[in-house]
Amino acid sequence: MTREVVSHRDGHVYEFGPEMDPVYEAADGESLTIETVDSLNGEIREEGDLLDAIPEEVNAATGPIAVAGASPGDVLAVEIEDVRVAEDRGRVLTAPGFGLLQDDPDIDHPATRITEVEGGGADGSGGDAAGTIDFEGIDVPIEPVIGTIGVATDGETVSTLTPDDHGGNLDTTDVTGGTTVYFPVFQSGAMLAMGDAKAAMADGEMCGTGAEIATEIDVTLSVIEDPAVSPDRPLLDTGDAVKTLASAETMEEAVELANGDMLDLLTHHHGFSRTEAYLFSSLVGGLEISQVVDPQVTARNAVPSDHLSLPF
Amino acid sequence: MTREVVSHRDGHVYEFGPEMDPVYEAADGESLTIETVDSLNGEIREEGDLLDAIPEEVNAATGPIAVAGASPGDVLAVEIEDVRVAEDRGRVLTAPGFGLLQDDPDIDHPATRITEVEGGGADGSGGDAAGTIDFEGIDVPIEPVIGTIGVATDGETVSTLTPDDHGGNLDTTDVTGGTTVYFPVFQSGAMLAMGDAKAAMADGEMCGTGAEIATEIDVTLSVIEDPAVSPDRPLLDTGDAVKTLASAETMEEAVELANGDMLDLLTHHHGFSRTEAYLFSSLVGGLEISQVVDPQVTARNAVPSDHLSLPF
Repeated sequence: MTREVVSHRDGHVYEFGPEMDPVYEAADGESLTIETVDSLNGEIREEGDLLDAIPEEVNAATGPIAVAGASPGDVLAVEIEDVRVAEDRGRVLTAPGFGLLQDDPDIDHPATRITEVEGGGADGSGGDAAGTIDFEGIDVPIEPVIGTIGVATDGETVSTLTPDDHGGNLDTTDVTGGTTVYFPVFQSGAMLAMGDAKAAMADGEMCGTGAEIATEIDVTLSVIEDPAVSPDRPLLDTGDAVKTLASAETMEEAVELANGDMLDLLTHHHGFSRTEAYLFSSLVGGLEISQVVDPQVTARNAVPSDHLSLPF
Repeated sequence: MTREVVSHRDGHVYEFGPEMDPVYEAADGESLTIETVDSLNGEIREEGDLLDAIPEEVNAATGPIAVAGASPGDVLAVEIEDVRVAEDRGRVLTAPGFGLLQDDPDIDHPATRITEVEGGGADGSGGDAAGTIDFEGIDVPIEPVIGTIGVATDGETVSTLTPDDHGGNLDTTDVTGGTTVYFPVFQSGAMLAMGDAKAAMADGEMCGTGAEIATEIDVTLSVIEDPAVSPDRPLLDTGDAVKTLASAETMEEAVELANGDMLDLLTHHHGFSRTEAYLFSSLVGGLEISQVVDPQVTARNAVPSDHLSLPF
């Protein structure tokens, strides 16, 4: 079966809300290729292109895609098979009033560096053969990240700059080929959208971006009805580890949510008391930082797959 | 040459200060074995042994050890060759008013679980042959962590419960066999002390402990005079990555310090401007969480060894 392609040219959003109009209706179990533009809509092409402020419309998310049969209380599984860079360059940049070290007087705001793609790239080879990007003469392996990915919200309307329980601007390095991301379904059809991909990104995304780049993303979408555990927030399975994902105003709040969600999974999987789950969570895997620069920050709690699998 | 053994029985401290009396004077380049008691001085032996409050004296750190020739402005390199568990059990526990989820009504505070050592352990084999601990019937690999490690401070007196620029209660999973930790030397002799080891610990140390256990630690101590970069805080090199380490009241402050320190290393190594170092730091490695439960929290910024080596 040929995969349908859903492109940002077919439709994209700059916010996730409770009511979203789908640009495509996918069958449960359907495999798609999703094309995304970079977070700045291709407007930064050269190092002289500077970003004086974060645009009001940023992180265009291709979609939304309705998934047949998805109803509130279900879980949407987004199996990410591959993420391929789809242009010849990325861009990594600062902008005034944005980023972890925005007050450092020795760092230029704005500043732009273009990271040219060398080898691999959009040849569909994916994985380790994905090539490199060039940063000031240094080869940086292409390890693509989908920065913004989410579903229709429970009620609020949230910019694609902000992560929350519906996903959104999670900026999480694990959201890449080989990972399955699970979202709580808040609205009929789930209404998946994604964009804001990077050719490479550090955990933390300190300057406010990775190497922002257009991509082609292969996914398979599946609805899980009557899930044995009902997540309040996104979860992911990288194959090596299961991780909870939580966004909040402070990192302290985010890690508290991520750890609490992990205890729900550990109690279900092992039959632990909540106390035992907490003690066990303090021995294996642990807390991780996704990003510290968006209007809410995002953290993860990881447990190796040796010790946990999801009940889906 | 036979290694001298310095044991907690020879001397230990519960605080790091500017003036510390050494229990041993090491030559520059000397290799030692350091014996540590668990963070609770062996007082928790059974699951019925509960910790009603964090003791005033906690995390006994064996030492201090003066290193000949170490002067303020130097760097002390602590090459950790091996960490072996030295008793038949660890203990993982909660205490009232302590830990990330201390307000969760479904988690018991206090609670104790004993984690028995199975195989490996104190046989000196180290590494992958270090065996496992048993948590409620689940085998958890022994991956020892030195929780508290530091040197005499610049001026303040700091409890061994608190991490800061001198090190102290860093609770960082990378502080284990195979890693070299570098400390700024604030006082003549440096005055190294360490303890509070765990048989296993998650990044974050959410419940407030790992599997606390006595250990034998093989180290080689070296003084670096006139360092090409003068760190304000501890650094470490795991062999796979170079990491900065910073502690502060909030995670936001800690990651800002850790990233700023990393920019110092990247500008020196690559000849980058500070802006370029910041952009590059947002593409590779990234921010990591050490612990979120001590009086100050601790974060790291990692860059893979492919892209950075320390100038020592």
